[in-house]
Amino acid sequence: MRVLALDAAFPFDREARMRKEHSQQLRLKIGIVGFGTFGQFLARRMVQAGHEVIATSRSPYHDIAASMNVKYFTDANDFCEEHPEVVILASSILSLEAVLAALPVQRLKRSTLFVDVLSVKEFPKRLLLRELPPEVDILCTHPMFGPDSGKGGWTGLNMQFERVRVAREPERQRRADAFLQFFEREGCNMVEMTCEEHDQLAASTQFITHTVGRMLGAMQLQATPIDTKGFQSLLSLVDNTANDSFELYYGLFMYNQNSTEQLDRLEKAFDEVKARLLQQLHDKVRQQIFYGESYSQPPRLALPDKTGGSSGGSSPASPAQAGSWQSAAAVAAAAAALEGQPGGEDGAAAAPTSNGSSNGSLGRLEATS
Amino acid sequence: MRVLALDAAFPFDREARMRKEHSQQLRLKIGIVGFGTFGQFLARRMVQAGHEVIATSRSPYHDIAASMNVKYFTDANDFCEEHPEVVILASSILSLEAVLAALPVQRLKRSTLFVDVLSVKEFPKRLLLRELPPEVDILCTHPMFGPDSGKGGWTGLNMQFERVRVAREPERQRRADAFLQFFEREGCNMVEMTCEEHDQLAASTQFITHTVGRMLGAMQLQATPIDTKGFQSLLSLVDNTANDSFELYYGLFMYNQNSTEQLDRLEKAFDEVKARLLQQLHDKVRQQIFYGESYSQPPRLALPDKTGGSSGGSSPASPAQAGSWQSAAAVAAAAAALEGQPGGEDGAAAAPTSNGSSNGSLGRLEATS
Repeated sequence: MRVLALDAAFPFDREARMRKEHSQQLRLKIGIVGFGTFGQFLARRMVQAGHEVIATSRSPYHDIAASMNVKYFTDANDFCEEHPEVVILASSILSLEAVLAALPVQRLKRSTLFVDVLSVKEFPKRLLLRELPPEVDILCTHPMFGPDSGKGGWTGLNMQFERVRVAREPERQRRADAFLQFFEREGCNMVEMTCEEHDQLAASTQFITHTVGRMLGAMQLQATPIDTKGFQSLLSLVDNTANDSFELYYGLFMYNQNSTEQLDRLEKAFDEVKARLLQQLHDKVRQQIFYGESYSQPPRLALPDKTGGSSGGSSPASPAQAGSWQSAAAVAAAAAALEGQPGGEDGAAAAPTSNGSSNGSLGRLEATS
Repeated sequence: MRVLALDAAFPFDREARMRKEHSQQLRLKIGIVGFGTFGQFLARRMVQAGHEVIATSRSPYHDIAASMNVKYFTDANDFCEEHPEVVILASSILSLEAVLAALPVQRLKRSTLFVDVLSVKEFPKRLLLRELPPEVDILCTHPMFGPDSGKGGWTGLNMQFERVRVAREPERQRRADAFLQFFEREGCNMVEMTCEEHDQLAASTQFITHTVGRMLGAMQLQATPIDTKGFQSLLSLVDNTANDSFELYYGLFMYNQNSTEQLDRLEKAFDEVKARLLQQLHDKVRQQIFYGESYSQPPRLALPDKTGGSSGGSSPASPAQAGSWQSAAAVAAAAAALEGQPGGEDGAAAAPTSNGSSNGSLGRLEATS
């Protein structure tokens, strides 16, 4: 029985001690395989949170690792012989298989907890279940953020995870909990979800976001002095996407079987928007061609003295004739261009043979454009 | 000669007086034509800034107008007879011609300043120059924001303007200045730019932003528990775009001759991204078909005891055979789908006749997918 009254008399001591116990309880020896941008991003925070972090990768990242108090190995055998309790696979999606094949897993403790942090989830889940010894624990996770979006802090950022295989022993369970608690304490919104469900949702969210970013990146959009807020948010999306490798984007596509369908949906949505614009253009062009109407027919309001012209010598042209800012031919050409053909049968070609009223309007307006 | 020493002794009085003088000097009688969302948005701020605001529109907005101290008229004759010094045309792009035609301009003072606030600029500039009496002043402006993006305040938001025609008289010049100063005082970033240049830049910024918003809107994207920050910014873009009418979007397209080219560029960029993904898919499929290689060939590192299997009974399959998470046939089908044809000549059709090693891999992997 503990004497809590004494503790209550020294609240600060007690809190400090509890905090120490708590943090010791959670202190893990974590090994990171793949020390690129994302591996370094995780390592930095984990060291700050009090965990012991070691890392391995083929590139000589010794200096960067030393700067953040991470013990670094280029030889994976040395890394494994350190017996990290948790091994985080932080390679790119495309190289995970090769990285895992090159890891001397037999030098690790049989009880090691393997964690992957890839942006696709079904692929690593299947691969780890197939390739790793049955004794190791497996946790598949996807922190839905990176060095750009997680720069200011991780509060409120989403963290998906699935306890794919964690042995029943209480200490194995506690270790998996402790690992997840690291993200929870950093403020992440923890989302327990199967890898399959993750991939389904991520295809319509993360993959689409990257696709839009890549698309706009390929357009080489530039900031201008008259940008709207919406455009500025698109520009920063392009920036963030450009900071990610094409390899990551390709990985999101290739290693998530839901991506093709979502790409297809995006294409259909684009076609739908274009078709609606085109339909409106055609309607207007047909109006002009067949009825000689301007784009916007003014409502027939009572305007007795407008055309009488008493307001200083101006006699505005009848709006029914003065409607077009661009000639109907140019509009028809635009409509044809949208359809991907130089001249449509029902647009540009028909224009010169339209009725007199329309022709007159055309002639007058061409002079002004 | 003014006795400034006395003023200095009463700094608060002096400041108050100067502020009053200053605001009186800037106080304008502003008439808004078209009292929809944007007209109301402007009116509210203008009243708050101390201007006298009247408005007209065909719909009965009397209550809304009264609630913001705006005198409202459904009869445009009554509106014009109030002799507003400034007339803001805040109709939709598509209805500007009709709205202008229905306005009894001859009832206004001949010195009236006309201002348009449309999202395209060359079209209203030409229209106003052509349709309005030569005595009136014309200022074409585009506040690059609206009720959504300008909700929290206008600081730093862009405001394009062109003094299309302002008579030389100092009072006419001062009135145009006073009108622009309203936006400047609200914190806008004032950008003097020709209407033609505006339309060129806006097609690659605002129109593209709206197109992406419309595209994603047509996809009916949904928020999920694992959204990234980037996806969340796309969702809010869709929300903002959905709040605007299709009429506005169509106006941006139809009344800006640069829009077709930008839509074309967006389409090409999309095709480019898809082509790059497709190319990679084809490369992988060909590798499998012709050489029986897995997607990621592991580097040949020295792993003497990995295959010897001493780490607890696991004997991982050779990565060269275990590489695929998805069958090559599925990948080929995806590649064909991307090309929009059910079976490509160099992909799916060739798969069943590929060499034995690849076939063996296919058979094994199909069972797992």
